[in-house]
Amino acid sequence: MNYPLEPIAVINSPFREKFATPRQPGLAPSVTATISFYPGYGVPETVRGLEDFSHLWLIFLFHQNWQQGWQPTVRPPRLGGNRRVGVYASRSPFRPNPVGLSAVKLLEIDRGKGEVRLRVQGADLIDGTPILDIKPYIPYGDSPPQARGGFAEQPPEPVLTVDFSAAATLFLQQHRVREPDLERQIREVLSQDPRPAYRRQSAEQQEYGMNFADYNIRWAVKAQQATVLEIKPVQISASSIAAAHD
Amino acid sequence: MNYPLEPIAVINSPFREKFATPRQPGLAPSVTATISFYPGYGVPETVRGLEDFSHLWLIFLFHQNWQQGWQPTVRPPRLGGNRRVGVYASRSPFRPNPVGLSAVKLLEIDRGKGEVRLRVQGADLIDGTPILDIKPYIPYGDSPPQARGGFAEQPPEPVLTVDFSAAATLFLQQHRVREPDLERQIREVLSQDPRPAYRRQSAEQQEYGMNFADYNIRWAVKAQQATVLEIKPVQISASSIAAAHD
Repeated sequence: MNYPLEPIAVINSPFREKFATPRQPGLAPSVTATISFYPGYGVPETVRGLEDFSHLWLIFLFHQNWQQGWQPTVRPPRLGGNRRVGVYASRSPFRPNPVGLSAVKLLEIDRGKGEVRLRVQGADLIDGTPILDIKPYIPYGDSPPQARGGFAEQPPEPVLTVDFSAAATLFLQQHRVREPDLERQIREVLSQDPRPAYRRQSAEQQEYGMNFADYNIRWAVKAQQATVLEIKPVQISASSIAAAHD
Repeated sequence: MNYPLEPIAVINSPFREKFATPRQPGLAPSVTATISFYPGYGVPETVRGLEDFSHLWLIFLFHQNWQQGWQPTVRPPRLGGNRRVGVYASRSPFRPNPVGLSAVKLLEIDRGKGEVRLRVQGADLIDGTPILDIKPYIPYGDSPPQARGGFAEQPPEPVLTVDFSAAATLFLQQHRVREPDLERQIREVLSQDPRPAYRRQSAEQQEYGMNFADYNIRWAVKAQQATVLEIKPVQISASSIAAAHD
């Protein structure tokens, strides 16, 4: 039997693509995101008393993986990408039901006009992710004091040192007023080393790019050092919009 | 847009009805439950490495509330049943998407033949609840150290003292070999005072009954004292099975 579930809200985050999106919540703590309810699901009464809770659970759909199927085992990046564990022993997005679960910090409730919006911190959700449910985080039930974490016992250490080229530094200085947190956000994201595990062995310099917030960011990695080469605004041209809808 | 989700497993627990089922996980710690995967979802590889984790997340459907609808506010039993909070500030089963979330302790993985079964402790799920996903509990991401719990900051104190009539005591003695934990389980469940909030004010003695595991249990409450009057096996007759299918 199938149960049809309809998303109640959508999250807007600076993570525009799966590559370089943190693999667990809280790893890029200075990144914030906004949850907007769909019509009918977010009248102000629905969040009465929510301000008394510091954290929320987001239950969401890995919508980019919808229809992609699943395998009984996965290779978590934490294990170097070459050891297999069962899908239920992982938080992989490739699951029988591609449903995600993340605890985020609640920063602000915007009751504005009409539907409510929530600003949250520490989310690891890609921009546009549909949200099925939002619940308060209740420490006594949600934080079992004796919980052991298997292969993910400790948070991943930041594995890369991050510095900025002269050009990237200049860009950050020129945009400091509008984007006071951008440098820190880029540091948090890149220090986790978003590269796939099999690329981490390479001794040669490699270049990567990501779209993050309204910027395209290019960086180079060699040994344990990431250097941000260039930051530039994403140009949204009429032709690229048309192409995206082809 | 709707996303059809198909349950991967079902839980069998001694909680046979909504009344007296604990309202959060961990409140009846000596109660265990068994999760059985549906065909195709639980080959042994799917749980490889799961034994390294002490706790699991269950994401499940409040299937008894499916189609019952929801309201923007609810009255949590914790607040005496007379103060309203927003549905997203509660863990009420009456939600836009009736999806539940519980952390349970993993006791045993039975790889048996064919589909895997998991034995868990502390679940607050009604017998027969369909499960959408099972994930490992990862302390560093799932236990934010600074989380505050709003109106549910502390676990509910057991509010009733529980004792047993002579007849109930005799029954427990006679069934001690087969049901060594039954007395403790009944104590844990009844000490939480399953009565609806509006009945708690009454000074008169009240009687209640529940089906729990294979037993029908009747108890009386007066002031802060619950007395188990009678425990008897549930008679499953051919006619009641027929009636259930009418």
